[in-house]
Amino acid sequence: MKYIYFFSQNETDGKASMRDLLGGKGAGLAEMSRLGIRVPPGFTITTEVCRYFQQKKKLPPGLEEEIKKYMSKVENITNMRFGDESRPLLVSVRSGAAVSMPGMMDTVLNLGLNDITVKGLAKKTGDERFAYDAYRRFISMFGNIVLGIPYNKFEELLEKRKEEENVKEDPELSAKGLKRLCEDYKELLTEEGFELPQDPWKQLIMAIKAVFSSWNNPRAIKYREINHISHDMGTAVTVQAMVFGNMGENSGTGVAFTRNPSTGEKQFFGECLINAQGEDVVAGIRTPIPVQALKERIPQAYDELVAVYQKLENHFRDAQDLEFTVQEGKLYLLQTRTAKRTALAAVKIAVDMVEEGLITKEEAVMRIEPEQIDQLLHPMIDPNEKTEPIARGLPASPGAAVGRVVFSAKDAEEWTGKGEPVVLVRTETSPEDVGGMHVAEGILTSRGGMTSHAAVVGRGMGKCCVVGCSDITVYEDEKKFVVKGKEVREGDWITIDGTTGEVILGKVKLVEAKLTPQFETLLKWADEVRKLGVRANADTPEDARVARDLGAEGIGLCRTEHMFFGKNRISIMQEMIMAETLEERRKSLSKLLPFQKEDFKGIFRVMDGLPVIIRLLDPPLHEFLPKYEMLLEEYTRLKFTNGSKKRLKELEDLLAKVEALREFNPMLGHRGCRLSITFPEITEMQTRAIMEAAAEVIEEGKTVLPEIMIPLVSHVNEVKTIKEGIIKTAEQVMKEKNVEIPYKIGTMIELPRAVVTADRIAKEVEFFSFGTNDLTQAVFGFSRDDAVKFLNAYEEKGILPQDPFASIDIDGVGEMVRMGRQKGKSSNPQLEIGVCGEHGGEPRSIDFFNSIGLDYVSCSPYRVPVARLSAAQAEIRKRLNVQ
Amino acid sequence: MKYIYFFSQNETDGKASMRDLLGGKGAGLAEMSRLGIRVPPGFTITTEVCRYFQQKKKLPPGLEEEIKKYMSKVENITNMRFGDESRPLLVSVRSGAAVSMPGMMDTVLNLGLNDITVKGLAKKTGDERFAYDAYRRFISMFGNIVLGIPYNKFEELLEKRKEEENVKEDPELSAKGLKRLCEDYKELLTEEGFELPQDPWKQLIMAIKAVFSSWNNPRAIKYREINHISHDMGTAVTVQAMVFGNMGENSGTGVAFTRNPSTGEKQFFGECLINAQGEDVVAGIRTPIPVQALKERIPQAYDELVAVYQKLENHFRDAQDLEFTVQEGKLYLLQTRTAKRTALAAVKIAVDMVEEGLITKEEAVMRIEPEQIDQLLHPMIDPNEKTEPIARGLPASPGAAVGRVVFSAKDAEEWTGKGEPVVLVRTETSPEDVGGMHVAEGILTSRGGMTSHAAVVGRGMGKCCVVGCSDITVYEDEKKFVVKGKEVREGDWITIDGTTGEVILGKVKLVEAKLTPQFETLLKWADEVRKLGVRANADTPEDARVARDLGAEGIGLCRTEHMFFGKNRISIMQEMIMAETLEERRKSLSKLLPFQKEDFKGIFRVMDGLPVIIRLLDPPLHEFLPKYEMLLEEYTRLKFTNGSKKRLKELEDLLAKVEALREFNPMLGHRGCRLSITFPEITEMQTRAIMEAAAEVIEEGKTVLPEIMIPLVSHVNEVKTIKEGIIKTAEQVMKEKNVEIPYKIGTMIELPRAVVTADRIAKEVEFFSFGTNDLTQAVFGFSRDDAVKFLNAYEEKGILPQDPFASIDIDGVGEMVRMGRQKGKSSNPQLEIGVCGEHGGEPRSIDFFNSIGLDYVSCSPYRVPVARLSAAQAEIRKRLNVQ
Repeated sequence: MKYIYFFSQNETDGKASMRDLLGGKGAGLAEMSRLGIRVPPGFTITTEVCRYFQQKKKLPPGLEEEIKKYMSKVENITNMRFGDESRPLLVSVRSGAAVSMPGMMDTVLNLGLNDITVKGLAKKTGDERFAYDAYRRFISMFGNIVLGIPYNKFEELLEKRKEEENVKEDPELSAKGLKRLCEDYKELLTEEGFELPQDPWKQLIMAIKAVFSSWNNPRAIKYREINHISHDMGTAVTVQAMVFGNMGENSGTGVAFTRNPSTGEKQFFGECLINAQGEDVVAGIRTPIPVQALKERIPQAYDELVAVYQKLENHFRDAQDLEFTVQEGKLYLLQTRTAKRTALAAVKIAVDMVEEGLITKEEAVMRIEPEQIDQLLHPMIDPNEKTEPIARGLPASPGAAVGRVVFSAKDAEEWTGKGEPVVLVRTETSPEDVGGMHVAEGILTSRGGMTSHAAVVGRGMGKCCVVGCSDITVYEDEKKFVVKGKEVREGDWITIDGTTGEVILGKVKLVEAKLTPQFETLLKWADEVRKLGVRANADTPEDARVARDLGAEGIGLCRTEHMFFGKNRISIMQEMIMAETLEERRKSLSKLLPFQKEDFKGIFRVMDGLPVIIRLLDPPLHEFLPKYEMLLEEYTRLKFTNGSKKRLKELEDLLAKVEALREFNPMLGHRGCRLSITFPEITEMQTRAIMEAAAEVIEEGKTVLPEIMIPLVSHVNEVKTIKEGIIKTAEQVMKEKNVEIPYKIGTMIELPRAVVTADRIAKEVEFFSFGTNDLTQAVFGFSRDDAVKFLNAYEEKGILPQDPFASIDIDGVGEMVRMGRQKGKSSNPQLEIGVCGEHGGEPRSIDFFNSIGLDYVSCSPYRVPVARLSAAQAEIRKRLNVQ
Repeated sequence: MKYIYFFSQNETDGKASMRDLLGGKGAGLAEMSRLGIRVPPGFTITTEVCRYFQQKKKLPPGLEEEIKKYMSKVENITNMRFGDESRPLLVSVRSGAAVSMPGMMDTVLNLGLNDITVKGLAKKTGDERFAYDAYRRFISMFGNIVLGIPYNKFEELLEKRKEEENVKEDPELSAKGLKRLCEDYKELLTEEGFELPQDPWKQLIMAIKAVFSSWNNPRAIKYREINHISHDMGTAVTVQAMVFGNMGENSGTGVAFTRNPSTGEKQFFGECLINAQGEDVVAGIRTPIPVQALKERIPQAYDELVAVYQKLENHFRDAQDLEFTVQEGKLYLLQTRTAKRTALAAVKIAVDMVEEGLITKEEAVMRIEPEQIDQLLHPMIDPNEKTEPIARGLPASPGAAVGRVVFSAKDAEEWTGKGEPVVLVRTETSPEDVGGMHVAEGILTSRGGMTSHAAVVGRGMGKCCVVGCSDITVYEDEKKFVVKGKEVREGDWITIDGTTGEVILGKVKLVEAKLTPQFETLLKWADEVRKLGVRANADTPEDARVARDLGAEGIGLCRTEHMFFGKNRISIMQEMIMAETLEERRKSLSKLLPFQKEDFKGIFRVMDGLPVIIRLLDPPLHEFLPKYEMLLEEYTRLKFTNGSKKRLKELEDLLAKVEALREFNPMLGHRGCRLSITFPEITEMQTRAIMEAAAEVIEEGKTVLPEIMIPLVSHVNEVKTIKEGIIKTAEQVMKEKNVEIPYKIGTMIELPRAVVTADRIAKEVEFFSFGTNDLTQAVFGFSRDDAVKFLNAYEEKGILPQDPFASIDIDGVGEMVRMGRQKGKSSNPQLEIGVCGEHGGEPRSIDFFNSIGLDYVSCSPYRVPVARLSAAQAEIRKRLNVQ
């Protein structure tokens, strides 16, 4: 096995495609070497060695000899010797994984210095200060990273030395002071039970091991968890000759981007410092100058740098992020990598590069991280603002919001009525809160997961939402919440970020969303490629409008129950539920009919010519009544304080009804099509409202394509029974209105039994829509509301790679979807099959749905662009047969 | 297609095996005809005609001609003519389905009479009274059954006529009175808009149609629903020449059994009446005499009857139930069928017949309805008692109980402490009630289904239990329940029947269970045949004892949580839950350890040499705390009435904890192995208790085979994580105790995701146990507690053929079990696979489990004999390839 890959300006045995083996840094250096770009010579020890080291806790046999062999190549090229007194070779030892993990792992610079070589360095450079500065930096890095001594102990000694010399900044320290600091540091090492190895080879091997070990430091593990990076990849280690940008006015160091990473503008962009080291840029002690300033200061190096950046961008066919150092007029490239960029820049760069003929449209489509483009649709926290989050919840619906805190939907409406922006803070939300959610800038809850009510409704409204923020305790009655000992009261300002889940006290500056022409172009290209249709989940004409504007090809899910929570409606709904007889119930239903009809008409008008799938009433009826606990509390209070007799009686009746409807497990209770079976009159009313609305909008000259969807089906007989009723009513309305409406009937597939018997169900319907939220609940036996309590532990212990409500669980739930599709198509090849769960807007899930051949996904209106792009990428990946 | 099958003493084209086509009655008559037994001639119109009639609402073309053809055969044999004035042929028109539905469908007798033939009959018999009695019976039957006139209208006219003649009983009416009654009846028909057809052919066709129609009368439909008989079978119609047992002292009629249907004793058994018609026996006006009395009264007929009954029993190789009529000394058989019998009789007859060489052991095993033998294990209501149920719930656990009503577990213990038998009546039960359930004679709840807590625990205890009795409203606080306007208070006597679900006010006489030697023999034969193992679900040494005595081959499910509800334990458990730190929790757990260990030791001792599967803690922790609503009520009350400050503070803490643990859907919440993931210390304690108990019982010289089962697994990583912990603790204990314990680790398969990924899970474990209760919930998305509200409607509307919690849903849940088994065995062929849900004791489900090749079922201790028998029958059916 080959452990080590060499690189220099003239020779290399690595290349860019060896990223997995050499890490991003190693592969980039090797590729630059191939292109003849000047890089300080060095070599990369592969990630395979890292995996070996992690497993066996030692380096593979023979590695040290190899290292010596390659070090001697570096010596020959640089004409310096490792540990040599007069021409000491210094090296950096850096980590570098295949996936960039900025700042997560460790680096040791100036390795090779010891009490003797430091003198040689001083002599050779004629700069004692420089030499001892390098040495003290080396000792502290080695002490901290390799020996594990806390960094602040070195900082303290430095501060003491500065006090003694009565200076403020590090660079002001004298050579003598630095020399003494080196002694201080070495003493510190001794106190901690170590000794600085004077043998550079020993230093090198220890540093290599330390860098390998840093793969598993806690912050690296955490970073990988957050970013879904496999723990098995390992890091490579690159050992490279040091070059110094602080060797005078014709030296310098900097970072540059081949295009503007914020805007995507095609302009060379970057910063540098003359006579400085890389660390100084990071430390922010001196203010860097634009990279163009080099043109004046070290013209030859600048010209070379321009040539290099153009070469690199053309070679890699993507914007690059470079690190360079100029040592005494000579340009060295230390790193090149794909430049991180904002969503705005990503889109512009991709579209521009197609126009420049550099990449194809498909490549452009593949270049954009779908999740990123969410940024383009929502306001976000100004990247220039420094913020200190006080808590962090789940990022349920993207964008940021600033507003005054309120604790009830009613208060939200009152404050906004006075023109005040609000953030609605609740333990959890329920359908009753929808009005308040609608007027709020954002929503924050202390409970609930990624598919809790607040999350789903928030996303549907395109409204910033942070849920499950267990750091805060909400006292709705007292109109306050407590977070880390601080009380936040009604009217206080807060800022929440639904993209990161952060909660920040006070007002933070936001920047608005921008929809650029390049964005439209990119999505058009995506549409040309994708096979998967994209529809939206929308319950109102407004949502439908947004969805259509963002490219939705229909409504995949219109939830009818949200319509019952409006003013004038909820009381009729309650009257219907409290009805003792069929006749009374029919009377209340007939009062609800006109409202439903108007809602549907509005949506049909907006969706002219596109299909609209309307789901029949789904939630259990008790959701429309006040909460049992609330009633019980009021009842008990009135009873023991001789309260109003009339109210007591009223409460008694209400309590009795709520008690009768109460369920141990509402999710598994009397809801969905079970309501249609026990109260066929509700379905009759809803069918009538849909069909009358369709007829009337058709009369307006529009094309209406209503599709009626039966929820929570477990048995084909449910479908048969309900379908019969729908057809009867539909035909009656068509006869009354004398119009032919091309309506369809379909089912949600959201229960395992529906999956297992999908072949039977498919014979009765024209479409399936997988409700992957409920299906995930049933397949895992997790309630999305309750799972928050243990899902954290599950992710921490690596039991689940990710929240299955956020990204589809391919092995379990996904397997059920695959099976359901296959069974459905087997008995009804014409069957149209989509997904309307929250997964319909999540890229990884979309990739899966595309791979198994579903017809469309349906997602929140604001996720439509994400879905369009993801679907295109999925199709390209499918064609290329890669994951 | 052949519509009609003929029979007479000499000739027939039907036979016994044509039961589906000719119905039980028709097939029996045909078979008797084959055996040369004298039957009145006639013919049977097939069930195919019935199905045709149901569908097309008319008789098939050509049928009437066929009927005429066969009627003329009957005329020739009887030497009488249909509609003839002097020798009128009269016929009966009877229903008869393949499955006996006693009294559910209609029969018309004496058809062929009209104003003219009645005179002929009078003349021919010389008995005008007889003729007009026959005529008035015919008119009323025809009027009621064919024309749909309410029967009481005929009754009223009869009563009026009796008043006029001043007589009390029908037979006292004079010929003249009967003649006038015929006129009254005909007038009634006219008033109702009909006329009695004088044409006998018209009468016949109308009657045949009416009998076919009676297949779908409401009581027949209801009967089929209750008895799971398909609505598609249809009934046959048998038209047969009338014979009369009321033609003098050498005539008579009766019913007889070839063996005693109550005890199974081998003795000819029956009753008859001299000079009477069949209806008279039923009407109960005269007291029948034992069939043996015929020997004296009509000796020749008796001798012939004895010969016939022996011939029939030998021919059919089963006890028969006969109907016969003697007309003027001549014996006619009207029906023979398999005799209904008590469980006791069924077992004795089957075992006796094997010993007589009449049937094989396997046939004997197939003869017993498994559900029936439950009767033999539990006290039952004395069949001689006349009872009037006031309400009916679900028959959750068989047997009957008499006791005084109590409304809380505490009261149950108090009353029984005073020596009073009690029936515990509650809205629903919870684990806190287990103590009270244990001392009660029986349990009655107004809520909950066949797998509710009360039902499951009741069955486990072998205790009579009726659940979901929605006719009663329980007021636990006021210690009363109300049923149909009646109040039943604490201390009142009631009787409940867990076999039928009936609730009866007052004390009813019970008969005790009897375990006969024949029963043991039969089960031994069953054991010889069956492949499927039978284990029991038992949580205590007492239950384990019962299970082992009844033949259980191990414990398939020992639920550890029930052990935490005992005195001294629940408070420690609560302390453990309230613990704020790991250390506190460990402290409480160490106090629970000795209790758990003792429980396990008791069970291990009883099960010496047999496997014991112990399930780790399963329910959510809040089940061990007081209910939220209760606390809220007390808290609100104290708060508004200036209650004790100390208690208020206590309640506040409790409320906070209960609130924190509360779940929207506990069934889908923080329970099962999710507890082991978040609180590994609980699993550690339980593993230690199991292993220490095993070690100590092994020291006593017994063989202990503990198997630790992880509940509610959805992902293989859960198993991996928990298994690691179990192994660590187990090995530690074995080291400490210096003993090798052959323990196993396995999982419940009760979530769809576990099924779908069973191949992965199987690699990590040694056994699977399908928890079909939870699996049914997840697959259907029904909670067993909440589904009661709509499952009735589902069964009524024919959406579900039966309660899927009672009998496994083969197409859905069953398919998942099949899939899980197949996947599991595919990756681990050694895997042992059983079922421990309630379906493990239900015959139809057992048949399914056997058909897909599971290794064992586990059921409540008292269901073990049912399971043994069912498993044997399933295996025999599998071999014969029949369902």
